[in-house]
Amino acid sequence: MNEEDFTKKLAGMFQQGPDVLVGPGDDCAVLDTGADRLLLAAADQLISSVHYLEGCPPAYAARKLLRRNISDIAAMGGTPTHALVTLALNPVDEIWLTDFHASLAETAAAYGVSVIGGDIARLFTKGEVCSLTILGSVEREKLCLRSGAKTGDLLYATGVFGNSFHSGHHLEFRPRLEEARFLAGHFTHAMMDVSDGLLKDAARVADASGCALVLDPLRIPLRRGATVDGALGDGEDYELIFAIPPPLSEELEAAWPFPETPLSCIGRFTDGTPGAVSGLEHLKQNKLKTGFDHFHEETV
Amino acid sequence: MNEEDFTKKLAGMFQQGPDVLVGPGDDCAVLDTGADRLLLAAADQLISSVHYLEGCPPAYAARKLLRRNISDIAAMGGTPTHALVTLALNPVDEIWLTDFHASLAETAAAYGVSVIGGDIARLFTKGEVCSLTILGSVEREKLCLRSGAKTGDLLYATGVFGNSFHSGHHLEFRPRLEEARFLAGHFTHAMMDVSDGLLKDAARVADASGCALVLDPLRIPLRRGATVDGALGDGEDYELIFAIPPPLSEELEAAWPFPETPLSCIGRFTDGTPGAVSGLEHLKQNKLKTGFDHFHEETV
Repeated sequence: MNEEDFTKKLAGMFQQGPDVLVGPGDDCAVLDTGADRLLLAAADQLISSVHYLEGCPPAYAARKLLRRNISDIAAMGGTPTHALVTLALNPVDEIWLTDFHASLAETAAAYGVSVIGGDIARLFTKGEVCSLTILGSVEREKLCLRSGAKTGDLLYATGVFGNSFHSGHHLEFRPRLEEARFLAGHFTHAMMDVSDGLLKDAARVADASGCALVLDPLRIPLRRGATVDGALGDGEDYELIFAIPPPLSEELEAAWPFPETPLSCIGRFTDGTPGAVSGLEHLKQNKLKTGFDHFHEETV
Repeated sequence: MNEEDFTKKLAGMFQQGPDVLVGPGDDCAVLDTGADRLLLAAADQLISSVHYLEGCPPAYAARKLLRRNISDIAAMGGTPTHALVTLALNPVDEIWLTDFHASLAETAAAYGVSVIGGDIARLFTKGEVCSLTILGSVEREKLCLRSGAKTGDLLYATGVFGNSFHSGHHLEFRPRLEEARFLAGHFTHAMMDVSDGLLKDAARVADASGCALVLDPLRIPLRRGATVDGALGDGEDYELIFAIPPPLSEELEAAWPFPETPLSCIGRFTDGTPGAVSGLEHLKQNKLKTGFDHFHEETV
């Protein structure tokens, strides 16, 4: 069974209460606690020798861990609010921990996030496993889901793609929080952050929305040093992809208030097999990476 | 610097927003989201070869992980509602993962908890790191904090103590959720769950409450095979300790509706150095374990 199907099978084992509007399978879970805004929650981890090189400064690891979780909140149209962090590490080095926490505190303060709890424990072997749960909130009318795209909608993307690891982007990126807040509600209700590779993640939006997708690979903006194949499959871009109804396209491009963030139309949702992606026939499909595989990823 | 002081130093680095009623340092963080009930959140982890023996069935690990987090919610007087789980493991074994998730789902259903998200990734070496964030809620008037004890209050405990690891209690315990709900509000506003050892955790309640504490070691109920020293220091009991104003003591003992859960008065809060514990002078103090050390714990 592939990772996608197996993960769905595992998630399907859990019973969800009536307050769970969205359970596992989107960028965040969505809860209705009875407050004005919906509650968002997601968890992600960063593992030494897998998500960053051994010897990576703890300040970079902490910043990346929080920012990638904030990117998940952004993709729902929301605002991050709180985080909880668990660390399993060996050695339990006070300097490493102090640097990690100082960077986490600085990043959290920059995004208005309160780090409210966590746990530190010794790992049985040298290395680190860092896990972060992010909480956030979103106005009911701004909530964006992967499943919100409709046949005929255009697929837009922020930023540029590919070559994230070698360029250092995977440690330096800024989650597209302001862009997402601008988009959510009026322009789109279908958004996702690209972390596992543009092709894989775009297909997920299409699949969740019951649409097929035609990508225009020549319109995918490339990061310096990236190939089209890399843009489609490298992952760790932390950019937003989102569905725009064609009547809003012109308004969006005219109103886009982020001159430093590229905005590109890279495809269109169509009728067809849910999740099927076409438009890539001219690329050497057999060499195309289909995105990040969490279960079998190579040690970096 | 000892673990307690170092952890406080790290937690002190984080700015807390105005909606954070209680930040790091209690069993859970407490948030006021504007809903009727307060939101509770805590995170904890379970690490192979540290918190359970290598080869421990994943079903036991999953159950323990969720139950120990529910015990933290119970200690605040609350009800568990949602969980997020991250797993770093190697090998990424489908049978292990299926067993883990099946047990997690069964335990979650038993406590009315929705497992709403998480992440699975490959660890760089053989073993598992499991991290769980629990969310819960509590009526404002039922909230219990470590800091709620007052001079003159009696220290009560549920259950029996010591010898948790060898007896298997650390895998089989049930969080004292119903007992905590019965106690919270009317009988007590000062409660904690004992996971790091009775002496260490009781001292934490006293310290947070600005009181000293006199323990009566002869009144501490022992688990089969446990010594008084072990009851004070072994940890992994997952029992509740709580402060009871003397006028409520008789009413509590008469009303206690849990015949299978022992209820014992084991001490009294007094004026004195916050967190100072006396009453143990007749024990061989130099041999007394002072509780579980998360940074330097032995491999089991």
